[in-house]
Amino acid sequence: MKKVHIGVSARHIHLSRAHIEILFGQGYVLHEFKALSQPGQFAAEEVVSVQGSKGRMDKIRILGPARSETQLEISRTDSFALGLNPPLRQSGDIVGTPGIKIIGPAGEVELQQGVIVAARHIHFHSSDAEAWGIVDQQMLKVKLNGERPLILENVLARVSDQFALDLHIDTDEANAAGVKTDEYAEIID
Amino acid sequence: MKKVHIGVSARHIHLSRAHIEILFGQGYVLHEFKALSQPGQFAAEEVVSVQGSKGRMDKIRILGPARSETQLEISRTDSFALGLNPPLRQSGDIVGTPGIKIIGPAGEVELQQGVIVAARHIHFHSSDAEAWGIVDQQMLKVKLNGERPLILENVLARVSDQFALDLHIDTDEANAAGVKTDEYAEIID
Repeated sequence: MKKVHIGVSARHIHLSRAHIEILFGQGYVLHEFKALSQPGQFAAEEVVSVQGSKGRMDKIRILGPARSETQLEISRTDSFALGLNPPLRQSGDIVGTPGIKIIGPAGEVELQQGVIVAARHIHFHSSDAEAWGIVDQQMLKVKLNGERPLILENVLARVSDQFALDLHIDTDEANAAGVKTDEYAEIID
Repeated sequence: MKKVHIGVSARHIHLSRAHIEILFGQGYVLHEFKALSQPGQFAAEEVVSVQGSKGRMDKIRILGPARSETQLEISRTDSFALGLNPPLRQSGDIVGTPGIKIIGPAGEVELQQGVIVAARHIHFHSSDAEAWGIVDQQMLKVKLNGERPLILENVLARVSDQFALDLHIDTDEANAAGVKTDEYAEIID
């Protein structure tokens, strides 16, 4: 049985170095709150707010370290509450996506693009992928055994010797199934 | 192919006659806003607010007609925002479920029980069920062909000559898959 650790991503934001300085002040450095499952990644102590045409959301967690481009990842449910229609994309693929206003303690950013609903995926360390005969970019079927059992189709495999084995889903997917971070899913195909 | 109309239930409430009078005034009668897919059921013009330990939600739509017992149906996502932990239940099965404060224009109700996350189900008219060889209370597998294709397991069949063919899912399930009301799902098993 191919068991995979589940990591549920709540809405969060990755910020560029330039945007960190606008939102928090010149030379500002994020403070690590908690390490994430992928090596080097962390949840920061800092949070921001975002303002869409229909609503505002506060306490959006920043994930570090700084990236080359700012990216806000929200659920489809969040997108209706904020009043925007971001596409389903893999992380980093933000061309043509909507922007949003980001509000920090020291300033605001009118983001021009970078809001996505993050497409589910599994991070495999190269050795895990090899053991299970799975290759990078393969599409998998995954079962979530929560209170409302679900089979996810089109789950993208991402393989690297920099990755730790982890299924990343968002809160809509987790809540639809009734699963939480640190539970396990099963690759069935 | 067994195609079934999708009806997505947003958070809503069914009220008892007594609670309608506390919330809206003595002798108050709900006004029909829109007929629902099941014969005789309607969305009312009236809305209420609910207040949980962690949050409040306004504009909760009332579905009529009045029922013998008040029942609030919310998504798992809503339950975290409100700060309560309702079980997954079929409609009407509310013994031992949490309550919540309901706020109307004329008064408030401290509901003692009645908050559920509604379990997905398909309403079949008896003739539809017979044609497809499906019996009341059978568990089905259903595919949602949205932007994130999902297979729902444990979908309860409810058969009656009072029902119209309709798959009822909540906003977590709909948003996880990326489907909307008036789209179609497929029974695959």
